[in-house]
Amino acid sequence: MTQKLSIGLIGAGRIGKVHAQSIANQVADAEIVRVADALPDAAAAIGQQYNIPFSDNYKDVLQDDAVKAILICSSTDTHAQMMIEAAAAGKHIFCEKPIDHDLSRIDAALSAVERAGVKLMIGFNRRFDLNFQKVKETISSGAIGEPHLLKITSRDPAPPPISYIKVSGGLFMDMTIHDFDMARFLFGEVEEVFATGGVLVDPAIGEAGDIDTAIITLKFANGAMGTIDNSRQAVYGYDQRVEAFGSEGMVEIKNNLPNTHAFYGADGVVSEKPLYFFLERYMDAYGREMAAFVDCVVHDKPSPVTGQDGRAPVVIAMAALKSLQENRPVKLIEIS
Amino acid sequence: MTQKLSIGLIGAGRIGKVHAQSIANQVADAEIVRVADALPDAAAAIGQQYNIPFSDNYKDVLQDDAVKAILICSSTDTHAQMMIEAAAAGKHIFCEKPIDHDLSRIDAALSAVERAGVKLMIGFNRRFDLNFQKVKETISSGAIGEPHLLKITSRDPAPPPISYIKVSGGLFMDMTIHDFDMARFLFGEVEEVFATGGVLVDPAIGEAGDIDTAIITLKFANGAMGTIDNSRQAVYGYDQRVEAFGSEGMVEIKNNLPNTHAFYGADGVVSEKPLYFFLERYMDAYGREMAAFVDCVVHDKPSPVTGQDGRAPVVIAMAALKSLQENRPVKLIEIS
Amino acid sequence: MTQKLSIGLIGAGRIGKVHAQSIANQVADAEIVRVADALPDAAAAIGQQYNIPFSDNYKDVLQDDAVKAILICSSTDTHAQMMIEAAAAGKHIFCEKPIDHDLSRIDAALSAVERAGVKLMIGFNRRFDLNFQKVKETISSGAIGEPHLLKITSRDPAPPPISYIKVSGGLFMDMTIHDFDMARFLFGEVEEVFATGGVLVDPAIGEAGDIDTAIITLKFANGAMGTIDNSRQAVYGYDQRVEAFGSEGMVEIKNNLPNTHAFYGADGVVSEKPLYFFLERYMDAYGREMAAFVDCVVHDKPSPVTGQDGRAPVVIAMAALKSLQENRPVKLIEIS
Amino acid sequence: MTQKLSIGLIGAGRIGKVHAQSIANQVADAEIVRVADALPDAAAAIGQQYNIPFSDNYKDVLQDDAVKAILICSSTDTHAQMMIEAAAAGKHIFCEKPIDHDLSRIDAALSAVERAGVKLMIGFNRRFDLNFQKVKETISSGAIGEPHLLKITSRDPAPPPISYIKVSGGLFMDMTIHDFDMARFLFGEVEEVFATGGVLVDPAIGEAGDIDTAIITLKFANGAMGTIDNSRQAVYGYDQRVEAFGSEGMVEIKNNLPNTHAFYGADGVVSEKPLYFFLERYMDAYGREMAAFVDCVVHDKPSPVTGQDGRAPVVIAMAALKSLQENRPVKLIEIS
Repeated sequence: MTQKLSIGLIGAGRIGKVHAQSIANQVADAEIVRVADALPDAAAAIGQQYNIPFSDNYKDVLQDDAVKAILICSSTDTHAQMMIEAAAAGKHIFCEKPIDHDLSRIDAALSAVERAGVKLMIGFNRRFDLNFQKVKETISSGAIGEPHLLKITSRDPAPPPISYIKVSGGLFMDMTIHDFDMARFLFGEVEEVFATGGVLVDPAIGEAGDIDTAIITLKFANGAMGTIDNSRQAVYGYDQRVEAFGSEGMVEIKNNLPNTHAFYGADGVVSEKPLYFFLERYMDAYGREMAAFVDCVVHDKPSPVTGQDGRAPVVIAMAALKSLQENRPVKLIEIS
Repeated sequence: MTQKLSIGLIGAGRIGKVHAQSIANQVADAEIVRVADALPDAAAAIGQQYNIPFSDNYKDVLQDDAVKAILICSSTDTHAQMMIEAAAAGKHIFCEKPIDHDLSRIDAALSAVERAGVKLMIGFNRRFDLNFQKVKETISSGAIGEPHLLKITSRDPAPPPISYIKVSGGLFMDMTIHDFDMARFLFGEVEEVFATGGVLVDPAIGEAGDIDTAIITLKFANGAMGTIDNSRQAVYGYDQRVEAFGSEGMVEIKNNLPNTHAFYGADGVVSEKPLYFFLERYMDAYGREMAAFVDCVVHDKPSPVTGQDGRAPVVIAMAALKSLQENRPVKLIEIS
Repeated sequence: MTQKLSIGLIGAGRIGKVHAQSIANQVADAEIVRVADALPDAAAAIGQQYNIPFSDNYKDVLQDDAVKAILICSSTDTHAQMMIEAAAAGKHIFCEKPIDHDLSRIDAALSAVERAGVKLMIGFNRRFDLNFQKVKETISSGAIGEPHLLKITSRDPAPPPISYIKVSGGLFMDMTIHDFDMARFLFGEVEEVFATGGVLVDPAIGEAGDIDTAIITLKFANGAMGTIDNSRQAVYGYDQRVEAFGSEGMVEIKNNLPNTHAFYGADGVVSEKPLYFFLERYMDAYGREMAAFVDCVVHDKPSPVTGQDGRAPVVIAMAALKSLQENRPVKLIEIS
Repeated sequence: MTQKLSIGLIGAGRIGKVHAQSIANQVADAEIVRVADALPDAAAAIGQQYNIPFSDNYKDVLQDDAVKAILICSSTDTHAQMMIEAAAAGKHIFCEKPIDHDLSRIDAALSAVERAGVKLMIGFNRRFDLNFQKVKETISSGAIGEPHLLKITSRDPAPPPISYIKVSGGLFMDMTIHDFDMARFLFGEVEEVFATGGVLVDPAIGEAGDIDTAIITLKFANGAMGTIDNSRQAVYGYDQRVEAFGSEGMVEIKNNLPNTHAFYGADGVVSEKPLYFFLERYMDAYGREMAAFVDCVVHDKPSPVTGQDGRAPVVIAMAALKSLQENRPVKLIEIS
């Protein structure tokens, strides 16, 4: 039996725990061997659960020779620096999205990775969801013919705390960035963006300088067009749908439901709302994502989500923000 | 332009009105030219609406030389006698189901029709519904392979008045007879029946000597099996579904809905109940049925629902009743 | 019994025939009494079918004292002039959409109608479709709370002939105009439009100066946002859906299907495509539309689709075209 | 932290592996500490995977004082004897269905368990599936009112090997037994059964003395009726649905799908078939089942699936077989 890939975890918050659990339960050929988190209690919790060394200093992970790959699950502002140091230490890197809110810092990090020749994969988990994968396959198979229209619905069940909103980078960088990635994943490169948005859910979000509702129009390099609609609050749950329309047909995916029941009563037919929580909705996708990262490292395959795949949605988010501010379509070449 | 087929209507009640309306609106090459109903007001209402002669004596219709075909929409106990007289008068006949509750009377009527050489079509309207026709086509195309299992769900939204129950001939003869016809239409001849039933909806139905809920198992001549479930009261509306399963797949049809909306709220997703009323559900089918009758007469085609198609479900209903009473499977050859 | 409303039909083409048929079959208190069409054969066909006077001169209809109301179903460029003359003749007016492609001609026509005090109803048939009405009711009931996002999908099964494209007024004026009306019907007044579009279906459409695929973003006066997507060719049929999202929930409608069957085979589950043809999809709505017009005239009720309702979508279409040409959002106040 | 419940696994085949995996990944407060299987390789495989002692003798498990509870996952003919010995050894018992094919052996085993006062849970995994649980909850809540009709569809994707068929105990004891349990779970005690069946899938199944297709009618103690339909081969996958109808409404569950996509093309709309494999369909339910067993042992709760729940479906299966053989309804009191 091959030796397992030894992974160091940096950031023991919600998403760090998810990845640790995925590796323990679903990824046979990898194991978490060390963990660090700036909050000592968080690091300790995971350390004790998996019986591995833990500390409040991420450098401990990077300096551990046993660690061959790291997961960067800390706050966004630390990603670029950690990538640079990890690359220097020769560790393969899985980094949560977004890489950074600043293009020059992203570029510095990507350069460091390239120079070091380590693997880098960005955590766009939805690419590993079976529904979105089926859409991708259907498009790639040619079944819809030439792509014409892409419609992405992406709505959260409830807004995050205002404290989070303030450091989130804004709706486009925090939430729509997944949709920008999905747009590229399905229809290819984006050339121009027009964004409109407003504060319809909670005035406090506006006071924090952000919006909570938006519609974004995309123009793709291949001539296709797309639209994304976002809301910070869909009272019926986490609403994640896609529709891809082309010359030969359309493929759509619906939401996942907790069960398939329907009740037929005198007042109508009642069935389930979509799953409410993103972890519930994408738990399986997170597992597949980790498996894909380990597979790319262990078997020396190309990264399924490259550094460029991490950079491009940031550029689109910046263009969208500029479009919103200036109320005009913005070409991506205006950014960077 | 060809002359229109002149039709006489006997029975100006609910179903008679439906057929008159279908002919006026949807059947270009036919027209109602005379109407009779034992209730003079009913006859008058239709007579005045269409500006045609009316009376309270069905013989007036049969003796009218201008009448080439008749619709028998009067009460079941009059069907056989009217068929015999209409055949003698050389009129083509459309007769509502069931022909009669007595096999010897049915046979006498069918013999009279045969001797006279007139067309006879029995009013099993569901055969003309686009949903059931699609099931039939799918089975006939071989898509499901060899037929194995047939499941018919047939539930009324609310029971009829007890006064009607008393003269209805019982659940099997009044309501299930449509399902027995559908079973034959889709899977062919039935050889054996086992019926179980009870009074679960309204004790008054039991006091009237009938049941209101039933499950019937069918064995077909081709080795397939089927099940029918009936209720006199589905609070969510008129429930009419079929599922046909075979060696190569399954075809199912669902209920028709008044509209396609779904509301997603914090308490779930609410959509429409099935159409409540059978006339609403099958209005289109009634129109196609009349068109088929006129077509078979005008273009001298075989009847799409023959006298034998009218007799066979009566035999099944009698076997089902015997099965219920004796709590054992009953072969159809035990009847008649 | 009340006397029937006597209606004159101007324009005996496809839509004129539909309205004549609706009135004959579904509107008890009205009748077509005279017809005119510039093509004598078209006028004659309807005239003979309903046994009424016909001519190739619409003035014959306007000068007939028996005619109390008229249906303007002729080509768009004749609408305004006919409205003015009909108003002068004291006839109530039903006019197909769009009123005209020119705002000053529209305004002249609306002024003439107002001065004459006759009823005017514009033919936005989708407002009378049971699906869209259910969405309207759900929004009006407050069930979705404050309106936030509106998504209209509107795709034709196949493009019209290039000869038609050339005189159509363009995609926005010919096809999206229905969606602009639907947007107003559901979410109220529009303030700003951003349109993007392309020629993805057929280069000949581009050569004719039009586009065949578009996404339009709408900003409403109430702060809500909307998106419309159009294609001249959805190979799976006529795609007409709406989704209205608000603070308390979402309501959506799906397409109507020819039947409800699903086939489960080894290769997947196959069910029906949407109805292909707009007349099939909206036949019932056309009937309800005519009934509503007759009701408003006979019972002196307000018009359910006013002249202003006919003018506003034209303004939106003009703004959309300007937006497409200048690649920037256009406020409606820039128009007219 | 509480000490984990130490579990011994007897039977290291397919279902034994599933339970071991569930405990490792999903049940925090239990662990497999020893394994035995008559096939030494099977025992070794699991033993090495979890680094625990293994042998080919189940008595090794029963004699291990560290083992507090056992999972009986060996062949059916060994269940009763192992239960008796495990009870004597004071081990809590989880036993796969069916307990045995012989009522006297079942009764002996249940008596031994009762005398020993150990916990016993029978492995009817579907009771732990979220879909079936939702149906149960809906019925229990009173939402459907008085239960009237129960319809269970239960079809395998493909028949097992003939060698398995021969020792399976027959369709009713091997496959329908899950449906008999589900019927009791949802509607309560069964009083009478009528079964019809045939060999429609594969003649070799008939030659092995079994049937492959069946319809069973149930009469419940509460007056309700039910029907189960079974096939050994649904080419579209594992078909597991339930419909419960009552005086106030109906609740139904549909199949689980691998993803939610639908492709709209010129030939129709194609979506996913049900999950094909029962382990895939019920993997989550198996995990919940193990968690429920551990919970009942660790927290001294009543068993969620008692010995009587294991015995009753065997009685129904025997009655169904007798009904099939004698072609008559059979009361359960005729058995045992």
